[in-house]
Amino acid sequence: MSQAGTASKQAGRAREAQRVFGALDTEVRTAALRNLERLLEEREDDLLAANQKDLDDPGAADLPGPILKRLALSPSKLETLREGVRILVGSADPIGRPLVRRELDDGLILEQVRVPIGVLLIVFESRPDAVIQIGSLAIRTGNAILMKGGSEARHSNQALTDLLREAIAAAYAPADVVQNIEGRQAVADLLSLDEHIDLVIPRGSAQLVRDIKAASRIPVLGHSDGICHVYIDADADPEMAVRVALDSKTNYAAVCNAAETLLLDRRFPQGGAVIQALLNAGVEVRGGPDISALAEGVTPAQPSDFGQEYGDFTIAARVVENLDEAIAHIHTYGSAHTDTIVTNNGETAKRFLETVDSSSVFWNASTRFADGFRYGLGAEVGIATGRVHARGPMGAEGLYTTKWLLTGNGHVVGDYGPGKRSFTHQDLAVS
Amino acid sequence: MSQAGTASKQAGRAREAQRVFGALDTEVRTAALRNLERLLEEREDDLLAANQKDLDDPGAADLPGPILKRLALSPSKLETLREGVRILVGSADPIGRPLVRRELDDGLILEQVRVPIGVLLIVFESRPDAVIQIGSLAIRTGNAILMKGGSEARHSNQALTDLLREAIAAAYAPADVVQNIEGRQAVADLLSLDEHIDLVIPRGSAQLVRDIKAASRIPVLGHSDGICHVYIDADADPEMAVRVALDSKTNYAAVCNAAETLLLDRRFPQGGAVIQALLNAGVEVRGGPDISALAEGVTPAQPSDFGQEYGDFTIAARVVENLDEAIAHIHTYGSAHTDTIVTNNGETAKRFLETVDSSSVFWNASTRFADGFRYGLGAEVGIATGRVHARGPMGAEGLYTTKWLLTGNGHVVGDYGPGKRSFTHQDLAVS
Repeated sequence: MSQAGTASKQAGRAREAQRVFGALDTEVRTAALRNLERLLEEREDDLLAANQKDLDDPGAADLPGPILKRLALSPSKLETLREGVRILVGSADPIGRPLVRRELDDGLILEQVRVPIGVLLIVFESRPDAVIQIGSLAIRTGNAILMKGGSEARHSNQALTDLLREAIAAAYAPADVVQNIEGRQAVADLLSLDEHIDLVIPRGSAQLVRDIKAASRIPVLGHSDGICHVYIDADADPEMAVRVALDSKTNYAAVCNAAETLLLDRRFPQGGAVIQALLNAGVEVRGGPDISALAEGVTPAQPSDFGQEYGDFTIAARVVENLDEAIAHIHTYGSAHTDTIVTNNGETAKRFLETVDSSSVFWNASTRFADGFRYGLGAEVGIATGRVHARGPMGAEGLYTTKWLLTGNGHVVGDYGPGKRSFTHQDLAVS
Repeated sequence: MSQAGTASKQAGRAREAQRVFGALDTEVRTAALRNLERLLEEREDDLLAANQKDLDDPGAADLPGPILKRLALSPSKLETLREGVRILVGSADPIGRPLVRRELDDGLILEQVRVPIGVLLIVFESRPDAVIQIGSLAIRTGNAILMKGGSEARHSNQALTDLLREAIAAAYAPADVVQNIEGRQAVADLLSLDEHIDLVIPRGSAQLVRDIKAASRIPVLGHSDGICHVYIDADADPEMAVRVALDSKTNYAAVCNAAETLLLDRRFPQGGAVIQALLNAGVEVRGGPDISALAEGVTPAQPSDFGQEYGDFTIAARVVENLDEAIAHIHTYGSAHTDTIVTNNGETAKRFLETVDSSSVFWNASTRFADGFRYGLGAEVGIATGRVHARGPMGAEGLYTTKWLLTGNGHVVGDYGPGKRSFTHQDLAVS
């Protein structure tokens, strides 16, 4: 059978399995999660052995240090995964819960209820822990997932996928809601199957996300770039300006919510102190003559420095004339991820919060707070910078959609209209 | 300038205008709607004259009767449009309204607020009323729209678009949130501009929707096919089975929520009465030998009859062995629009409602109820059969997204972690 046929068959099995799985009682999905927690403990040696095969692969020696570190499983990483599964065991299952209950007429009751989205394609790089994190979230939310991890983690991913499937089957539920996808071609095939796949979630580099978005008409949830700005307004508290700029850039520079550009209002008198603090922290500051004039050691900026995601201890800096120029800069070069203003002026802050068109907009707080855990969303699915379905840090909430249920007693539309029955449209309490 | 350049510039102007428009006070958008209501009255003669130009076009003579009827404006159609605008003037504006308010820590407050989606591309056929219906909805929801109507209505569409722009400008708001798009090539160009256009809403034939979905990576909201099923269970009330089947098929056969297929449970003893009632109403019933055996005058069905949207007085009929076979048929041939079961058995109904994977699933009610007005959603944007963002009949709700606002007092992430501060995650009342 052709590759395309295989991928399509896998997707078809996922659809069928999900339709059963999503309609099961919540206790079944909870039982599968409990089984998973138990199996993660019982099979620890097997999992570590599978992971060792990946680490022993001749190709692994060529992997960069940070990638190799992410590839390696350990008893403590497995304990963290079990802890995550335990939290999901105890978390609410909103499937079937009404969001709207409305009487349309006597005896004609409309409900809008939550249901799983359906079949998700997850493409991720390297980190095998993601199999359990994403897999357990899929079990909780009643979705099916097709997972494609990096080939350098293939033994680990296969062992962890098998564990998920065993946990589901042991709860008398269809194991095909979790499937491992093999090979790049299979992913390419699946990205074209918009009838079979409802949502694609890429977790990895900006390039991975861009490639997937370019290759598929299926909705993609996530973000490619995290080009976050810190704007120091004329009325900023100088000490706070330094704190927020430093934390936004240096707390964890490799991640998407770290700042990449500093915008200094020309009327802010302490711009030099902010630049100096960044330089002192070991940050390369790239700027034009306006910035160079503020401190020694500024690197000349190129036009391409704005709108670039460094992901390291580098920041672009620019002097702006006022709030409007700051906002225009953010809209031109930003990626709608997270932008923050430092100011003591409430009016200025209000305009910034209302006008900046990003998924997270902050006032007097570090860009690094943009994160599902910090927002209190529980398990994090990702951060979406698009404008439909979900936006910003996204918890399990992003894995549900709704359907409408209408219950009547033989009601027909022909009975309604001018001179006939009319609708009551009475909202009812949601249980 | 090239076409692509023109379309891209229009989209760019729409983006800029929307960012201003969506951040204005609600009173400004309300004033624009009031202006629109007034202008629709003051310019009635001009609008009818523009419409007459379209009707007088030599090409109009070749249009099918129903299309010509939809193309023609009239004083009463304009009064209906004014009434729709009046309702929007009085309706709530949720922009900026918090959905979530959460204290993350002392003085660190997170809000998730509603915001407009951004720039919408609306492609519709023939009916010029849609310009005002969609345009007024865009004003209310703070979105920008690029509108492409059918070329046979170009004078009408241009006059109505000019009216919308005048109403917005007279409220001192940027008129470029409403723009008319000229030419097929411009639409093709815009469909490729996923950086500029956030959502595409096609309103027209199934073919139009399919073409647009195939041509674009931008999310498309809507549905191409409406293949709705009526399943008469073994335990159906015979009189109710006839009522629901008849209304679902014959109340308005040309629309997407009309039934296209009847599924009769073999154990339902009165299948013949249902088929006969449909035949008596002038419906062509297409079925196999099982169906022909129930009544005289059944047309032999082809395999292609299942999964076909007739849009007229034709229905495919099939005998199924049980609920599972009915559900499997719906999942194989349906379009996730609306499917209904007729039964007096609550257990069977519950399984049907939970298991059928469509955007609207009914029990003892006609499929024709699937409609934004009947659901009590106010102005209808369309019916979405996809699984992300919006599903089923969609009101203005579908034209909003959210953003996250975080307000601190110099809070930085470096202060949190093991042995340091921890988050409080206290949900606060939403004002």
